[in-house]
Parts: sequence; structure tokens; C-alpha cells
Amino acid sequence: MENKFLNLSFSSWNLQVSRLKNIIETLSDEQLAQPISPGRNSGWYIVGHLIAVNDAMSEILGTGKRAYPELHSPFVQNSEQPAFIQSFTGLLRNYFLLVHVRLQEEFTTLTEDAWLARHAAMTDEDFLKNPLRNKYSVLLNRTNHLSYHLGQLRLLY
Amino acid sequence: MENKFLNLSFSSWNLQVSRLKNIIETLSDEQLAQPISPGRNSGWYIVGHLIAVNDAMSEILGTGKRAYPELHSPFVQNSEQPAFIQSFTGLLRNYFLLVHVRLQEEFTTLTEDAWLARHAAMTDEDFLKNPLRNKYSVLLNRTNHLSYHLGQLRLLY
Repeated sequence: MENKFLNLSFSSWNLQVSRLKNIIETLSDEQLAQPISPGRNSGWYIVGHLIAVNDAMSEILGTGKRAYPELHSPFVQNSEQPAFIQSFTGLLRNYFLLVHVRLQEEFTTLTEDAWLARHAAMTDEDFLKNPLRNKYSVLLNRTNHLSYHLGQLRLLY
Repeated sequence: MENKFLNLSFSSWNLQVSRLKNIIETLSDEQLAQPISPGRNSGWYIVGHLIAVNDAMSEILGTGKRAYPELHSPFVQNSEQPAFIQSFTGLLRNYFLLVHVRLQEEFTTLTEDAWLARHAAMTDEDFLKNPLRNKYSVLLNRTNHLSYHLGQLRLLY
């Protein structure tokens, strides 16, 4: 992979992932169970949300299948319901690691042209109307999405 | 500017800037004076911080001079001191707009090769050791920095 812009975008992704890994490993179970601000989502909900959203990237990029479809309902489709998410919290630290190891491998299977091709969640027709919505834009958007929630998880310290 | 990766990175930057503009215009002065979570920075501090950090990008990219050096001390160098930042809050909405209009113009003055060249805050020697620290990496890092604080400002709604 020789494209320097693409390589730097992978570095930027990896940096956000490693900051999140660090925070998730540092915070205790009790800290992650706290809301990031009174009345807001808990740390666990945000961690589950990031796993579920990024797990689905494999299918959007066309590089593989999502591993944890069962996280979509409790952490993406629905707002936080503590009883609903409780059965997952013991698994989330490990899932977070596994999803991001898998994605890092899958990223390297795409060529420069493939990154600029339409993503799998849109039709050819829609892509003609909006050629900016390609796989590379998914990578950039999801990197920002990690940063967005990193800024919130930091409030649990 | 023909490089698609670079163009998509500008779109990603612009998207974060426009989300922040929207939130800053929507929140009242009183909402921005609130801490994002008990005991944390206020909305005003975060807005001032984003202006001061991004204002300095012109000098790091070598495209111009910062316009508001007086914001560095209250919003970057020092943690929040309400009495110290109070005299600036009436100016920040406008400064936020002006800084980002200027940067958007300056971004277009850099060639593809210039984006991959070392940024002005590092020496040639350091750049040889770490060639990833170029102007493009500054753009990606600052985009993530905007998202990070956007996730926090959203808590003021």
C-alpha cells in the first residue's frame, strides 16, 4: 500500500483505536457503568455502540461479515436500556479488541481504487449522484465517530 | 486540487466545522456557560479552545499568521478560569466563523506535495525520523480534535 494519504488515514484510525483501548482498559467496570454526564449514556453503552457500528464496517466495505449482529439492537437501534445491555458488558472489552484487530487486517486487503469505489450500503445510482460517499469516506467518518465518543468517555475519569 | 483522498479529507473537515457552527449558533449564551458535565470545562472554554488551536494551524501549515494569539493563554495554556475567559465570550461565535473561513481558503493554496511535507513546528531532522508528521497528518489530527470536542458540546443540549 503506497498511497501516503491512505497510510496516514490508517495511522489516524489506529491512533483513535489505541486511545480508546487504553481508556477502556483503564476504567473499572464500575466507572464504565456510570453515565458520562447526569442522565446521559453510560460508558458501557458507548463502548457497545462503537463495537456494533465498527463491526458493521466489514459489510459496508465489502471485506467480511460482522461478528456481533446481536449488538445492533441494544447499542445502535435502541437508546440505552440498562437491563437490556447488562448481559453484554462482560464481553465488550474483548469484543472491542477483536473487532479492531479484524478491521486492521481487512483494511490492507483493499486497493487504492477500491477505497474510492462506492460502499456496499449504497446503490450504483446513488453513487453516481454522490461520488464522495465511497469507502474512504466511511473510513474518515468512522474515525471521527471514534473521536467523538472518546471525548465523552474521557469524562468518566 | 485533483487528489480524491485529499478532497475527501477536506469534506470530512468541513462536515465537523459545520456541525460545530450549528451547535454554537443553536446554544444560548447561558447554555454555553454551563459545564459539559459537573466540574468540567464550560461550553465557552471548549469553543475558545477550538478557535485558538485551529487559528494556530495557519502557522503550522505555513499558510498564514494566526489572528488571535491572545486566545492561546486563556484557552490552551491554562485550564479554565472563568474570570479570565469572560472578556472573550462575546467574541467567540464570530471568531469561530472567521477562523474557519480563512482556513478553508488557505487549505486550497497547498499542493498535494506540500501536504506531505513536514509541518512548520518541526525541524528537518525530526521529520527524517518521523516522516508521518506532515501537514496532512495535522489536518487529520485537527479534524479528530474537532469531533472529540463536538461529542462533549452535544452534552449541553
